[in-house]
Amino acid sequence: MLQETPIRIIGIDPGLRRTGWGVVETQGNSLRFVASGTVTSDAKLDLASRLKQLYDGLSQIVHSFRPDEAAVEQTFVNKDAVATLKLGQARGIALLVPSLAGLPVAEYAPNAVKKAVIGVGHGDKKQIHMMVKVLLPKATFDTDDAADAIAIAICHTHHRQSAHSRAALAGL
Amino acid sequence: MLQETPIRIIGIDPGLRRTGWGVVETQGNSLRFVASGTVTSDAKLDLASRLKQLYDGLSQIVHSFRPDEAAVEQTFVNKDAVATLKLGQARGIALLVPSLAGLPVAEYAPNAVKKAVIGVGHGDKKQIHMMVKVLLPKATFDTDDAADAIAIAICHTHHRQSAHSRAALAGL
Repeated sequence: MLQETPIRIIGIDPGLRRTGWGVVETQGNSLRFVASGTVTSDAKLDLASRLKQLYDGLSQIVHSFRPDEAAVEQTFVNKDAVATLKLGQARGIALLVPSLAGLPVAEYAPNAVKKAVIGVGHGDKKQIHMMVKVLLPKATFDTDDAADAIAIAICHTHHRQSAHSRAALAGL
Repeated sequence: MLQETPIRIIGIDPGLRRTGWGVVETQGNSLRFVASGTVTSDAKLDLASRLKQLYDGLSQIVHSFRPDEAAVEQTFVNKDAVATLKLGQARGIALLVPSLAGLPVAEYAPNAVKKAVIGVGHGDKKQIHMMVKVLLPKATFDTDDAADAIAIAICHTHHRQSAHSRAALAGL
């Protein structure tokens, strides 16, 4: 069997006020924490300037950590259309930045992320954070959004591994 | 009175499938059509790639026509959350591109745009197109979205003129 090269994954939990990000590295069955953080926008500024702040912040992260693949949480669609629109605008930036850097961008529904880290498709933020610490004891996160972003990145390592195994099998 | 320098304005009507754009030039009380068109995204691609297509298309337009200011239509918030989210994502790109180019970005509600071109805050697309042709006989547009984008740019010339007059008065 070939020695697999490490793959860096950035997970992004988009939001207009706070966009969390987390970078992990996967190699074979091992998983390593690289970094995490939160990009914020200034609520006093106009919307276009706030989206530029998110773009600049995320672009800098992608430039610094050079991930190979990206995963973005699929937005929870609630009944508040104004909130949905705001989230949509921030989410547009979260999807754009890795795409501009040439990364494939996967999307995962919140219950898929929960299933990947907790083992079931439901659970609260506290359970997610606890399992992130179990899976990656060295992981640190400054906000809930950063912890969620790490969980999204972990979720992608599971799904891409199965995609990888399928590809390997198909190649036999 | 000083001879005013011409100001180029880009109007943008955002949409994930089709984003219309229109560039006009205003100088004193005169208004001139420069160009218009539609940036499309390929519905067969994944969302991140589609947003990149909108980004690349709009960036090229801004680079080619070098507008001084931008105006983007405020999204109609309807009850379909999925449609609102899609529109929000496209709208994020429409606000980001001119902001990255250093342009101030104004936002106008659909009824403000209608009021600026038709004279009242309601009316259908046909009336908007007719009035765009009356105000700018040389205007051409390939889609409804491009015509709407020209109307948004016209709307901004009205509002920025009044802001300009107020600034001039304040400076006396």
